[in-house]
Amino acid sequence: MGPIVSIVGKSGSGKTTLLEKVVAELTKRGYNVGTIKHDVHGFEIDYEGKDSWRHKKAGAKTVVLSSPDKIAVIKDVDEEWNPLMLGFSFVDDTDIIITEGYKKAKYPKIEVIRKAKATKSICRKDKNLIAIASDIRFKCKDTPYIDINDAKGIADLIEKRFLQKEVCREKTCLMVNGKKISLKPFIDKLLAEAVKGMIESLKGCKNPKDIEIRIKT
Amino acid sequence: MGPIVSIVGKSGSGKTTLLEKVVAELTKRGYNVGTIKHDVHGFEIDYEGKDSWRHKKAGAKTVVLSSPDKIAVIKDVDEEWNPLMLGFSFVDDTDIIITEGYKKAKYPKIEVIRKAKATKSICRKDKNLIAIASDIRFKCKDTPYIDINDAKGIADLIEKRFLQKEVCREKTCLMVNGKKISLKPFIDKLLAEAVKGMIESLKGCKNPKDIEIRIKT
Repeated sequence: MGPIVSIVGKSGSGKTTLLEKVVAELTKRGYNVGTIKHDVHGFEIDYEGKDSWRHKKAGAKTVVLSSPDKIAVIKDVDEEWNPLMLGFSFVDDTDIIITEGYKKAKYPKIEVIRKAKATKSICRKDKNLIAIASDIRFKCKDTPYIDINDAKGIADLIEKRFLQKEVCREKTCLMVNGKKISLKPFIDKLLAEAVKGMIESLKGCKNPKDIEIRIKT
Repeated sequence: MGPIVSIVGKSGSGKTTLLEKVVAELTKRGYNVGTIKHDVHGFEIDYEGKDSWRHKKAGAKTVVLSSPDKIAVIKDVDEEWNPLMLGFSFVDDTDIIITEGYKKAKYPKIEVIRKAKATKSICRKDKNLIAIASDIRFKCKDTPYIDINDAKGIADLIEKRFLQKEVCREKTCLMVNGKKISLKPFIDKLLAEAVKGMIESLKGCKNPKDIEIRIKT
């Protein structure tokens, strides 16, 4: 799974607009980008009368639509999933995940401040704040200021900090009881090699390049 | 992951209507049901101007919307995913998956035949056909006939064949290079115990009840 970077800010500050520009810029640079939008108040995606709506309405907890080029999933959950679980489950095949929202979560974040909406940072004490994107010329000691329309500048920052080729991308992703377990490189390798070794000897598992195991005990 | 049962039939035969009734009936009986709709011609779910549409339009390969009670995912794929991959990735937490479509796939299937659309079975030679639901009184030697409106009868059949408590539910799900590997009970147990044993000794992994590992080599 690629790293997670959040675009946060007050409602109406222009998070979606900035995200659009940054996603477009990173996509143009050849990266596969995934996005997660945090919608605390719920969202509408399924419309009355559509087959997916009818499936859901009949009681299905999860509805999947599958076509040759696109998949859609609508899923009921008992409690909110965090971005790591969402990323692990649905967005593990992209180079980076940009979230819209999650200002309270501990991901590197860029705060959008538009003077029509606010003049102060809501994340100024957050050590995960990596930049402020604003139409006000902020002068912060520790946090770089980037113009609110400078999507290239923000993409540069993200690329430099999270997408450099030298950065070792994680190969093993382990979730236990719904929580992601961070693995030291040694343990990562040990676990990957041990599992690969077991799997390789099974029928139909030659050259395992992509292994997924789910165990319920 | 629960078993997969397909509802198939010609376009306009009433697959969605029958699926709705069967899903409602199984849900009423206490089962968690997931559905997968096969849409060979593509589908519309995301509407112009919505934030998810804007994320996608900007270039995101996967867009997730997350709220406290619902998750939606819209994902571009290079080639069509089969129901097993969809089930494993998105619907592994339900008791059963009912698909609408996939008449050519090798899942147990119920064919809907409505006399206004057809009078012959398109799956009569398919050994996976477990019932015909129709408003024509079919007499088949091997395949039970059920009235097209008898959702209870179809739910009974599904429950009896796929949801009996005695049926041992699979505990380990293994996917290698995108394909599901079927495991004999002995291997299933061996693999589960070996992985569990390794995981248990890691920090933060006491009492692992639900383990997910993804390894890319």
